[in-house]
Amino acid sequence: MTLTLGIDPGSRITGYGVIRSVGASHTYITSGCIKTIPKSELPQRLEEIYAGVTQIIDEFAPDEVAIERIFMAKSADSALKLGHARGVAMVAVANQGLPISEYEARKVKQAIVGTGAATKGQIQHMVQTLLKLPGKPQEDAADALAIALCHIQTRHNMARMAGAKTFRRGRLVKS
Amino acid sequence: MTLTLGIDPGSRITGYGVIRSVGASHTYITSGCIKTIPKSELPQRLEEIYAGVTQIIDEFAPDEVAIERIFMAKSADSALKLGHARGVAMVAVANQGLPISEYEARKVKQAIVGTGAATKGQIQHMVQTLLKLPGKPQEDAADALAIALCHIQTRHNMARMAGAKTFRRGRLVKS
Repeated sequence: MTLTLGIDPGSRITGYGVIRSVGASHTYITSGCIKTIPKSELPQRLEEIYAGVTQIIDEFAPDEVAIERIFMAKSADSALKLGHARGVAMVAVANQGLPISEYEARKVKQAIVGTGAATKGQIQHMVQTLLKLPGKPQEDAADALAIALCHIQTRHNMARMAGAKTFRRGRLVKS
Repeated sequence: MTLTLGIDPGSRITGYGVIRSVGASHTYITSGCIKTIPKSELPQRLEEIYAGVTQIIDEFAPDEVAIERIFMAKSADSALKLGHARGVAMVAVANQGLPISEYEARKVKQAIVGTGAATKGQIQHMVQTLLKLPGKPQEDAADALAIALCHIQTRHNMARMAGAKTFRRGRLVKS
């Protein structure tokens, strides 16, 4: 059994989602957003993100953490803002001694919806379906849950591939 | 007496410098760099920056912190990298409950060298002269010391202006 925390970092809203998995099967545990107070100064907003991520780790004790990797940003200005939030979320996880995996947005969409060009609405719909939720999760929480699901799927496929190699070659080849 | 910590954040090298000031006079206390291990993964490098800034605050107990504000970055990619480092440095300071002031690079150069277009070499020279150092400080440490000096100068000018206003208007006008 593994508890995976997915994080979708943002300067205003940071989504999070926790999923319990056994092999390929998974159960929704929790999800939500860390919303920073818009009128606060930047250091205070970063403090809120750090405290929020730390609190989630304290409360749910995840084994693994997955976060969105960003390659493209609309502008240098938005990249800088996003970088602040993402750096703070990552260091809050690293300070708790947890491993972090990074996944590109396109890879997450491909894994969950089947196309790298999926819309926010399609991700919300598929996350609801895959986790058998009674309603659509909030956009950023859905993205965070999708990142966690992508991580679980990637890990499961890697384990299966390692298993296949064991079978073919008669010895365990770690991927 | 005030101890000011200046920080020049960077994804590979984060410069720092501590200056003690009484009014407009100031004394060099320490300076240096937090160099991250280039082969490390991003979360570990951010952890090193966070731990480094926290250690400096623990050791020197500054009263105030000044950090470079970034408006322009060469590209979205470099802005994102710089944003990670800057966000982590800021949250390490905020988590210690210290106030942070931000200064644009142009303002720092203007305050120290007299021109917003000063070169790195000019900043190193002026920092060495102003702090009566036996040699040129390393580039990033010099930038951090310049940021601290800019903050001390700004605070001193604000106090003087408040004083002048008191004299002229017969009541204290806080700037």
